[in-house]
Order: sequence, then structure tokens, then C-alpha cells
Amino acid sequence: MTKPMNVLWIMADQLRWDYLSCYGHPHLETPNIDRLAGRGVRFTNAYVQSPICGPSRMSSYTGRYCRSHGSTWNGFPLRVGEPTLGDHLREIGVRPVIVGKTHMKVDTRGMEWLGIDPDSTIGVSISECGFEPFERDDGLHPYGSYDPDPDYDKHLRANGLDSENPWEDFANSGKGDDGELLSGWLLKYSNLPANIPEELSETPYMTGRAIDFMEQAGDKPWLCHLSFIKPHWPYIVPAPYHDMYGPEHVIAPVRSEAEKATTHPVYGAYIKSRICRSFARDDVRERVIPAYMGLIKQIDDQLGRLFAYMENKGLMDNTMIVMTSDHGDYLGDHWMGEKELFHDVSVKVPLIVYDPRREADATRGLVRDELVEGIDLAPTFLSCFGGKAKPHVMEGRNIEPLLHDAGRPAGWRRYAISEYDYALQEARQILGNDQKDARLIMIRDERWKYVHAEGFRPMLFDLQDDPAEFRDLGEDERFADIRQRMADAIFHWARQHHNRITMAPETIDRMSGREPRGIVIGVWDEAEYEALNKEPFAARKRA
Amino acid sequence: MTKPMNVLWIMADQLRWDYLSCYGHPHLETPNIDRLAGRGVRFTNAYVQSPICGPSRMSSYTGRYCRSHGSTWNGFPLRVGEPTLGDHLREIGVRPVIVGKTHMKVDTRGMEWLGIDPDSTIGVSISECGFEPFERDDGLHPYGSYDPDPDYDKHLRANGLDSENPWEDFANSGKGDDGELLSGWLLKYSNLPANIPEELSETPYMTGRAIDFMEQAGDKPWLCHLSFIKPHWPYIVPAPYHDMYGPEHVIAPVRSEAEKATTHPVYGAYIKSRICRSFARDDVRERVIPAYMGLIKQIDDQLGRLFAYMENKGLMDNTMIVMTSDHGDYLGDHWMGEKELFHDVSVKVPLIVYDPRREADATRGLVRDELVEGIDLAPTFLSCFGGKAKPHVMEGRNIEPLLHDAGRPAGWRRYAISEYDYALQEARQILGNDQKDARLIMIRDERWKYVHAEGFRPMLFDLQDDPAEFRDLGEDERFADIRQRMADAIFHWARQHHNRITMAPETIDRMSGREPRGIVIGVWDEAEYEALNKEPFAARKRA
Repeated sequence: MTKPMNVLWIMADQLRWDYLSCYGHPHLETPNIDRLAGRGVRFTNAYVQSPICGPSRMSSYTGRYCRSHGSTWNGFPLRVGEPTLGDHLREIGVRPVIVGKTHMKVDTRGMEWLGIDPDSTIGVSISECGFEPFERDDGLHPYGSYDPDPDYDKHLRANGLDSENPWEDFANSGKGDDGELLSGWLLKYSNLPANIPEELSETPYMTGRAIDFMEQAGDKPWLCHLSFIKPHWPYIVPAPYHDMYGPEHVIAPVRSEAEKATTHPVYGAYIKSRICRSFARDDVRERVIPAYMGLIKQIDDQLGRLFAYMENKGLMDNTMIVMTSDHGDYLGDHWMGEKELFHDVSVKVPLIVYDPRREADATRGLVRDELVEGIDLAPTFLSCFGGKAKPHVMEGRNIEPLLHDAGRPAGWRRYAISEYDYALQEARQILGNDQKDARLIMIRDERWKYVHAEGFRPMLFDLQDDPAEFRDLGEDERFADIRQRMADAIFHWARQHHNRITMAPETIDRMSGREPRGIVIGVWDEAEYEALNKEPFAARKRA
Repeated sequence: MTKPMNVLWIMADQLRWDYLSCYGHPHLETPNIDRLAGRGVRFTNAYVQSPICGPSRMSSYTGRYCRSHGSTWNGFPLRVGEPTLGDHLREIGVRPVIVGKTHMKVDTRGMEWLGIDPDSTIGVSISECGFEPFERDDGLHPYGSYDPDPDYDKHLRANGLDSENPWEDFANSGKGDDGELLSGWLLKYSNLPANIPEELSETPYMTGRAIDFMEQAGDKPWLCHLSFIKPHWPYIVPAPYHDMYGPEHVIAPVRSEAEKATTHPVYGAYIKSRICRSFARDDVRERVIPAYMGLIKQIDDQLGRLFAYMENKGLMDNTMIVMTSDHGDYLGDHWMGEKELFHDVSVKVPLIVYDPRREADATRGLVRDELVEGIDLAPTFLSCFGGKAKPHVMEGRNIEPLLHDAGRPAGWRRYAISEYDYALQEARQILGNDQKDARLIMIRDERWKYVHAEGFRPMLFDLQDDPAEFRDLGEDERFADIRQRMADAIFHWARQHHNRITMAPETIDRMSGREPRGIVIGVWDEAEYEALNKEPFAARKRA
């Protein structure tokens, strides 16, 4: 075997990079994920292209920056015609299968415009973000933008958990002393066990569906995107996970009093916003974080089950396994809740890549600090399956060199970039700026993290001297040169081609310096033509 | 009548801004176009978004910058799903009709991917750049990327002009003393009359087709894009136009010896390239320019015919008429041929807009120097037809304020921008740079023109003190501040949203600050929910 036949791409939702034991969490043991890291490469500087579900995922699923695919916030439809990883894989005979969440909203308007029937094979593929929907479930039933009647609800009903909304009433609620439902949407109830037998809850269900898929997959090569909805809110988990962790396991918040006095308008608006004020409360942290940890522990246990199944089936020998997340969770750090800004706890994700190929033997168990991006996965997968690179479409980098050689690769990227569009957020309402200018761009190199904030001063952090990102050097005169360099790097990136997607570089190279046959520009007479083209002028007509 | 019911959008191909008498040409009288200017507004600072056919037109037809639509050179397919003016007009019940050239290459690969049948109604519309093809003819038969068997050839054959390639043998060749064909592709023969009766040549044919369309159009509002292939090369014109002008009417080239010593690598590579060296020759200029003038004179005469027809039919009362071009032609100025760089003779175009509405009475005959762009036309037309603005899709500005008020509009654009991708050109081969970096961006304000050249120093011209653009101040220390300001303006533009096209601003405004119904983030308990939402927590379930 020289190429893996399959890829299992596991994504947890809202999983912070540092909430796994292999990434150093002191209380949360995740042995199955750790073991995967031991057999693969663990990346310590993996950045998503937007610190929020939809845009981050659209970047992962297209291999393109947010500015390129244009789906800059949750529910902003991915335009029809935006090529996805699924499109690229299907082209080379690989089944791109989704089991779980995509957070993709379909561009129904665009489909209508193009006369594409949503129920046709292509319509379904477009609607499913390029994936073949073995089981699509975007969670949050029925409040999200997706299927109001998911198979998961049917599964609960079939197992006797019946109500108008079993997802909410069983998987995402607890119960009070009098048997009343207490919603997991409310943080106060995060300490309750979810009203559901553990094996029926979302993570085991979806893991089982991945196993179902592998059972049925047959010999055609596949990529299975197993996309867990958890540990994303609602923060509630069934027994026994609900009380595995308590306030004593909640690590101290990474925050400083000085941060509250920030002079940065955008950060200032965020920490003033309701949601951030809520998550900054210690009682909220102590209630939410143990549940969040339980949800992660459950994922690790389920991955143990899945990996055992795969081992048993011999799939570990020919399946690349990637474990990652779509963004982090502030959990009160920096006086913030949710994600959306660019502190590492929000924009950095865990990324573990197990590559079964012999070429990867040199890196097993390696921990790497190179800058990698969420958009790197799609081109990596394409290459694994033997597909031809499409750098004019996919802006990420194939990370195979990092998987196959333990040394420093020459010419690796110097900067990682992430974007955020806060047009819809309370922070913009506080600031009162225009919705088209509610834009942030983060760029980091090995030492500095710089955040461009449209219409405001930038932020700057020294990740070497201040790894906790407490000191915003965005106004400090001593670092004007650094800021200029980082701004220049954003400019360099912004002005590149992002949409020249219909012309492959090899086509451009082949066409370079040649007029189309028959066309003659700036030639005086037949003799000049003949000298230039080594053929009689009349010959040009015979194409 | 408050809104015009129709738009006639005339585009000449490769028509320099200054080769019309209303724009000051001393020898070329264009009374019909001048008369239109007298009844409308004549713009003296209209810039196309790329100084070459395809990209300029794709910008005009989408209302979007080249970096946004991605079709950065001739024959680079316009991606499927890129919304065109035709799409927007069709939506509001207006027929978008093409009569002539688009230079659009269809994204067959994308259509295949999306399962769109090229022969379906939508497939045809996509293939025709959004237009309804009353008569599409991209010229250069059969060497261009379009129809190898055009109706124009059939028309010639039906009129007894039969050969394997009547377009070339009759419309675009002359004849020698012995009756042999002498190709108009060769500059030496530009002084010959084309081998065709004038009324059968391309410009009268296409004008006749526009009249045919108007005859048949009926009552449904329409936009007719009458897109002449001329005065684009091959530079050859039938009698009597072939000898209306001679070397005595060729204005002196705008060039200086000092320009030859340019230190700018890109400009230097261009003037070294074969095509530029050819057009810089005086004998070439004296042979080509009279034919070029004849072709323009013929267009003016044909427009006289068309306008008379329209006057007669009463169409002048309810038809907005726009006369413009897709780019200019160096014709030896600045030691250059063709177009492609950003001197005004290449990137500036004539633009005359006649608006029949009463609101435009205040500006009839006005000459305006505001900066306008090719991408402004599409949103202007949409507005004329009563369509709702789509600023998230179309990046141009509606110019109606400039048509309806003679005063200076507040907040008009400060900068005009144009881009050029020279990946395929000889200049890149001379420079040896990477094809993805063969990028130029021009930005000008009321005084300065700045050209960013990726990988090289910028160019800068002072259009006030040096309107001929002889002195490149790109390295002059005195203007470092100006250069910085212009670079900053490009950066500002480059980092804007260019692809957030699936979300209208009004939708974003409506959604701002609101979670989707049912979703609750960062709320501690029922009481807090109730205080925030003025409804019982349970009520949120009833959507």
C-alpha cells in the first residue's frame, strides 16, 4: 500500500485546543485521543480560518479562506459553484461522506437561479456542502438552519423517548426534583445529568452511525467526516459524565484585571456584551466547565470504541485519521464567552493526524509547532487519495511533508490567518459601525499575533513573552515596526488571487506567451510572420 | 414616464477615450456620438476594471472587480454562479439581450459539475454571460474561443461572399494587384479597403441586427447590449472609410525618449516585447491609425443610422443610451502597442450616457470629471429598471446622481481601481516571475495615478503636472507620502468583502443582534431569560 484508501476526519465542535490530556489538560484524561497522537503527529499551532462554526467549516470544507468563499458567518449560504472537497474527491472516485454536522446553509436562491433541483443528485450534494449525507445532523433541533426532523429524533422515539422535541427534552435537558424538565439551554442546569441513557445521547449515536457507515462502505475509497455536535452548547451531558468533574477540576481562568481596562474598542465591546459578561462569572464557569469536560470525556470514550472497531476491521492500516475541532471556547478566559475573537483559546484548535502509510513512520508521536491552518486538510486529503493539487482553488497547503519528514520543511508558511465578521453581533451594536466594516483579520507568525480591526487600531500580542495574551501592544510605540510588518503581510495576502479558480496553473503555464492559433498581433507582413513562426503565413489557417 | 423602459448599451471594442471629436480628436469627426453627448452626460474620467477585453467586460457584465469575479484574462472562464447583470434584470422582468461581442468564455467544467445542460434555458444564459443571445458574435472567426460558424458568415455567404472563412477573406482582408487576398491580420495591409461592400461589413451588420431586435422587441422592457467588434484589430476597413484618413491625420505619438530608460521592470519588459516594439514603429502607426480612425468613423455613421431609426420609432423617449468602450489602444504611445498597462490611453474609456428621463434635464450636455468605473453601469441599469440595489453583489456605484444633478455629489468615490494579470504575456517571460504574482493594480484619485506591481516597486504619475504620464515618480523620495496613501487605499479596498454575495445588507441588518428563535446562549436561568426576552422560557419553543 502506497496510498491510504480512506480518511476518517473527526471534528469536535467548540473543542478548545487545550482540553485534551495530550495537550496538557491537568484533569481531563483523554487516553484514546492521546493514543492516536502517539501514533501520529500532534500539531500545537493549528489555526482555523474563522473562530466560529460556519465560516471555519466552510473554509475546512473548501480549503479556502473566508474572504474567498464568502460565507463569513453562521447561516450565510455557501454560494452555489463554490467547489468543495467533496466535489474534488468525487471527481477521483472517492466517496465523501458526512456523518454529523456541517453548519452549512444552502444557497437556495443560487440553486434556483441555476435551475438545480435540490432533490437531484447534484442538488443534494450542493445542499450537503459537497458531502454524501450518510447522516447529516447539524444539531440544535429545530432551531438551527437545518433539518427539523432529524433521524436522531426518530432514533430516540424508536427507543421510547418520545415528545414533540426529543432532542431537546431528552438529550439536552435535565430533570428537576419533581420530574420537571430543566433545559440544558440554561447554564444553571449544566450540572444535571441529561435526561437520557448515555448510549442514546448524541455522541454515541453519531459514533455508531460512523461504524454503520464503515460496515456498509464496501471497497470504494471513502472519506468519512465524523462531525460531533459536542462539546458545543447546550452544555449538558448524561450520566455518568455529568459528575465526573467538579469545580475542583476547573482550571483557573486565564484573565487579568488589566484586560478589563482595554482601550481597544472591539475587545472592549465584546467584554461588555451580555454573553461575555455571563461566561466571565465564576459561578457560570464552575457550572459549565465540568459539563464541557464531561462531553469531551464522552467523545474520547466513543473514539475508543470507534478505534477498537476499526482496529478489529483492519481499517487502521489503510485509514488516515484526523482529529480536530472547528474553533475553541473562551469559557470565561479573557472575560469572554463563546469564541469569535482571536485569543488562542478561541482560534487555535487541537489537530492530530494519524497517517498509516509507511512514509509517516518517521514522525509517529511527533509534536510539531509549525503553523498549520484548517484549510490545509482538504488539499492534504486530496493528495492522500492521489488527486492532483488544485492550488488555484484550494488555498491551504498539503501537510504531507510535515507527516512524512520529522525535519523542518523548507519554505513552510510563515503566517497563519483567520478572519471574523461580527456584523450580526452585539459588539457591533455597541460600536455602531457599519455592517460591511465589522471585519477582523488575525495574522500570526512564530512570535507575534496581530489583529487588524477595520476602522480601529490593531491589536498585537507577543506570544513568546506573553503566551497568555494579556498585554495588547497595539498602541505601544516600541512595536510599530512589528505592526507594520504584520499589516504588510495581511496586505500581501489580501491582494493575491483568491478567485481565479477556473484556470489551473498548468494551463496558464501551457498558454503562456502564446497567442491562440490563427491570431496575429503586431506583425507587419508575411515575411515577419514567417520569421517568427517558422511556417508560411497561409499555414496558420489550417488549425 | 418616470423610469426608462429600455437601455441601449453600446460598446465599441478597443476604442480609445480620445478618438472621438467630442473628446477632442482634431481630425476624426464623430457627429452622431457628439450629438448623443450633447443630449446626455460625457464623462472624462471613466476607467475600466482591467485594460483588456475579457476581464474588463466580465467586470462590466457583473458589476464586480476582477479580483472578485476571477476571470482575470481573456478566455479565463467566468465561474458558474457568478451573478451577471442579465441574471439581475431577468429577475425583474427585463430582457437582457446581447447583439455582438461579450468575450466571455463559459465555465464548461463548472456547468458539468453542477449538472447544467448547456442547451437548457439556464445553460444558454450561463453560456452567454447572462444575456439572451439575439446575436452573439465574438469576432475573430474561427480563432476566438467562441462560435466557429457565426450567423455573420452565413449572412456573407447569402450575399454571395462565399469561402471557407468569409469573415477573414472578405471582411478582414484586402486584395492585391493581382486579386490575391492580403490579410488584415498583417499591419502592412491596413491601408487597403477591406474586400467587402461596406454595408456587408461587421459594423453595419451588427447595427442592423440591433435594429432587427428593436423591431421585434415588443413591449417588454429590454436592455440591448450592442457590442461592436471594431475598431479592435484586425485593423482594416472597407471603402470609403479606408482612405478617409491618411498619415497627415495621425496625431503625434505621446511618448518621450526618457520613457525608454525606465527603471520599472514591468514597463521595461513591456516596451521590450515584440508587440510593443512593433506598434512603436512610425511606419506601423501611419499604416494602422488611419484604418483605426476609419473604423471609428464607420461606427459613428452606423450610430447615426441607429439613432435615426430610434428617433423615428419614438425610442429616444424611453431608452437610456450608453456609449462606451472596453479599453483603449496604445497605438504606439509610450512605446507601447495594444493595451494592458495603465496609461490613460489604455485604461480610460469614453463614456457618454443619455438618460431620457426628465430628471436628467439638468445635466444635458454636461461634461463631468468625477471618477467612474466600468462596474458602475450594471447597478445603474438595475436602478433604471426599478430593481433593488445589490451592493453585496455589485461593487460598482449607481451613477444616476451624476445624471440627475449637475452639482458635485457628496461622498462620491475618491479612487478608481483597475487590475491586470499578465501571467500569459511576453512581459512575464522576460521578467521570469511566477504566474500567480504577475499582478498589477492601478489606483487613481483626482490627481495621482499609482500602480502596484507585485514583486516590484510601484509606479506613480502626477496627472495634474504631467498629464501625458511621462514622469514615473515611483522612486522619487519627495512623493513617498503619496505612494503610501495610495498603497493604503489599495489595501483598504483589497480587504473589503468581495464575496459575501449570498447575504443582502438588509437581511444582515434585520438579523443583527438576534439569535435565531429558540437558541439561548449564556443565560443562567428562566428568570434571566424572561427578563431579557419578555416572555416565559417555555414560550420560546412555540416558534
